[in-house]
Amino acid sequence: MAKDLKTKARAGELVTAHGKVMTPVFMPVGTQASVKAMTPEDLYKVGTEVILGNAYHLYLRPGVELIASLGGLHEFMNWKSAILTDSGGFQIFSLARMRDITDEGVIFRSHLDGSKHFISPEDSIRIQRSLGSDILMVFDECIPHPANYEYAENSMKLTINWAKRCLEEYQTNKKEGTALFAIIQGSTYKDLRTQCTEELLKLNFDGYALGGLMVGEPVETTYEIISHTAPGLPEDKPRYTMGIGLPEDIFRCVAEGVDMFDCVVPTRNARNGCLFTHKGKVIIKNSKYTKDPHPIDSDCECYTCQNFSRAYLRHLFMSGEILACILNSIHNLHFYIQLMKKIRQAIQKGEFFDYWQCFLATQNEHSMN
Amino acid sequence: MAKDLKTKARAGELVTAHGKVMTPVFMPVGTQASVKAMTPEDLYKVGTEVILGNAYHLYLRPGVELIASLGGLHEFMNWKSAILTDSGGFQIFSLARMRDITDEGVIFRSHLDGSKHFISPEDSIRIQRSLGSDILMVFDECIPHPANYEYAENSMKLTINWAKRCLEEYQTNKKEGTALFAIIQGSTYKDLRTQCTEELLKLNFDGYALGGLMVGEPVETTYEIISHTAPGLPEDKPRYTMGIGLPEDIFRCVAEGVDMFDCVVPTRNARNGCLFTHKGKVIIKNSKYTKDPHPIDSDCECYTCQNFSRAYLRHLFMSGEILACILNSIHNLHFYIQLMKKIRQAIQKGEFFDYWQCFLATQNEHSMN
Repeated sequence: MAKDLKTKARAGELVTAHGKVMTPVFMPVGTQASVKAMTPEDLYKVGTEVILGNAYHLYLRPGVELIASLGGLHEFMNWKSAILTDSGGFQIFSLARMRDITDEGVIFRSHLDGSKHFISPEDSIRIQRSLGSDILMVFDECIPHPANYEYAENSMKLTINWAKRCLEEYQTNKKEGTALFAIIQGSTYKDLRTQCTEELLKLNFDGYALGGLMVGEPVETTYEIISHTAPGLPEDKPRYTMGIGLPEDIFRCVAEGVDMFDCVVPTRNARNGCLFTHKGKVIIKNSKYTKDPHPIDSDCECYTCQNFSRAYLRHLFMSGEILACILNSIHNLHFYIQLMKKIRQAIQKGEFFDYWQCFLATQNEHSMN
Repeated sequence: MAKDLKTKARAGELVTAHGKVMTPVFMPVGTQASVKAMTPEDLYKVGTEVILGNAYHLYLRPGVELIASLGGLHEFMNWKSAILTDSGGFQIFSLARMRDITDEGVIFRSHLDGSKHFISPEDSIRIQRSLGSDILMVFDECIPHPANYEYAENSMKLTINWAKRCLEEYQTNKKEGTALFAIIQGSTYKDLRTQCTEELLKLNFDGYALGGLMVGEPVETTYEIISHTAPGLPEDKPRYTMGIGLPEDIFRCVAEGVDMFDCVVPTRNARNGCLFTHKGKVIIKNSKYTKDPHPIDSDCECYTCQNFSRAYLRHLFMSGEILACILNSIHNLHFYIQLMKKIRQAIQKGEFFDYWQCFLATQNEHSMN
C-alpha cells in the first residue's frame, strides 16, 4: 500500500473473486441491475472495476430468487467484474413507505406497489449472498438528520447488534472470496461514532464503511465526522464513505484515508446534462455551446469526447434523445474513473496534495468563460 | 444485378460518396440526427450501410446552418456511411401545424414552438445539400387518405411541378457523388400514379420513390398501387417505398422489385418492448418471460442476444431502464439488417420466394408457445 506524506491518503488494492480493484476506487451505481444508460461493455471501456447493486431494489424487483435462479447478479446482468451490494438499510429508510423497526428487523411497504415486507439482518445477508455479491454490507438503521442524542444512541446500538447478527449469518454459510463490511453509525455525535467504531472493530469485519452521512447535515459536519472517525479504523482494512460524492468530496475523503466511493451523481448528472471536466462543469444546455465544435473536454479520451462536439451533445439533450443520456453517462463515468486513477497515481508519486489543490484551482475555468 | 425468377425481386448495389449500399436495403431512421438509443458504433456493428435523416426536423432543430457550419450531418453526428434525407414534405403534412400550400411552396408553423416558416422546393434541395445528404428526395405534397380524385390530381400535378424545380436547383449546384430521387404520388388512383410516373420518368431522376402510401388506406390497396406502379419504373434505377414497413411488408415490396426501405418500426417497437425474431414477435413484458434464461432469439448473433436473457430484458423493460431501449434497439435493427442480407442472398441464389414463404410460416411460432 502506498501512502501520501502530506495527507492520510493511501493507495492499495482489494482482491475479489471477480478481479482486483485498485483503490481509491469509485463504484458506479447499478440500482436496478443496470448502471443507467450504460452497457457492460461501456462500463469496461471507461475502466470500471466494481459496481454497486442495491439489495432493496433487486429484492422488490425482479426478486432475489429469480436472480439466483438465473445464476446470480453477475450472470443476470452480464457483469464480469466485482459487485458490492448495499444491505437495503439506506433505501428502506429513505424510499420505503411505512416502517416499523423492532430489534428483530424492519417491516416496511414497497415504494413500488405498497406490498408489505419484513427484512431481518440475517435476511439481508441471505439476500446479498443469493445475489452473488462480492462485497456484502451489514444491515443498518440509517437515521435522518437531525436526530436527538438518545435516538441516535439507541439506533447506533441497534446497528451494532444487527452487525453482529449479520456477521454470524455471513460466517455460518460463508462463500469463499467474498467480504463483509460493517457500517459505522452515530449521527453527528462524535462520541457515538467512536463507540460504534470500537464495538464494530471488536468483530473484525473485512472492511468498514461510514454511513448516515450526507443526509442533510452541513457539509463541514460531514467532514468533522469523517476526520474524527477515519483515524480509528484499522490501517489494513478498506474504508468506504457510502453515497459520497462529488469530485471535490472524493478528494477530501481520500485525504482522510478513505478508499471506496459510490454515488449516483455522475450518471444522474449526465442525464440532466451536467458534465464533469478537469476545468469544471459543462452545463450542456447552455446556449454558449450551440455552435461549439469542441468536445466536452479536449483532453478526455472517452468515446464521447473522441467522437462528438458540444454542439451535437447540446442538440441531443435539447431534443430529448436517449443518445444524450448514453454519451453523457459514458463521459461522466469515464471522468470519475480516470479521476480515481489519477488520484492513485498521485498518491503513489507522493503528489496527491498538489494534485488536489491543482484540481480545485482549475474547477472554475468553465464558469469564468 | 441479380434477379429472382419467381418474383420481381432484385439484388444490386448503390454507390455513394460514403460507401456502397447493397440492395434491397433497410435504412434506420435518424430523425433528429440520432437513430434513437443507438451510437454510430452500435449502428455499424448491426451492419447499417445507410441511415435516413429528416430535413424537416433538422431544419427546425438544431437548424441547417448550424449543421453546415459544423461540417454537415455526417460530421455533426459522426456517421461515416451514407445518408438519405427526406425532403420535409411528409413531416410538413403530418406534423406541422397550419399549412398554406401555394404553387410557390408551403407556409407552415413548427410543431415545436409554433414559429412560422416557408419552404419552397428549391429551399428543400438547398437544405438537403447543406446537410451533406448523399441521396436527396424531391419536395412533394403528401396528401391524406381518403382524397377525392380532383384533389389527388391537382396535388399530383403540383408534385410534378415541384419535382422539376427540385431537379433544376439540384443540377444548378450539383455536388458530385450525390443522387436525387423523385417521389411518385397520386393517392390510390392508378391512372394518376401512371401519369405521375410517366411525367417523372421524362425528367430522368437517379431513383424513384413511391410516396403517399400507408397513410390510412387498406393494406391491399397499398399493394395494388405498388404492383401497379413498380413495373413502370426503369430497371436500372433504385426504387424506394417510403415509410415501409414491417418485415412482411418488406418481403411483399421486394417481390414487387422494390430496393429501399425505411421505417421507425424496429426502433420504436424496441422502445415499446416488441422484439422481432424469425419465429415471430417477442413481447418482452409478457409474464412468460419472467424467468426465461434464453436470449430473445437463440440463433441471433447481435450483442443483446449474445449477452442477455429474456428475463433480464423483461426486468429492464418493467423497471423503465434506458438500457432496455438500447439493447432492444440493437436487437431489432440487427434483425432488420440481417433480414435484408438474407433476402439479398436468397435473391442471388434464386431462393427468394421460398425464403419468403418460410419466413411467413415461422412467424407465428412465438404466439403459439
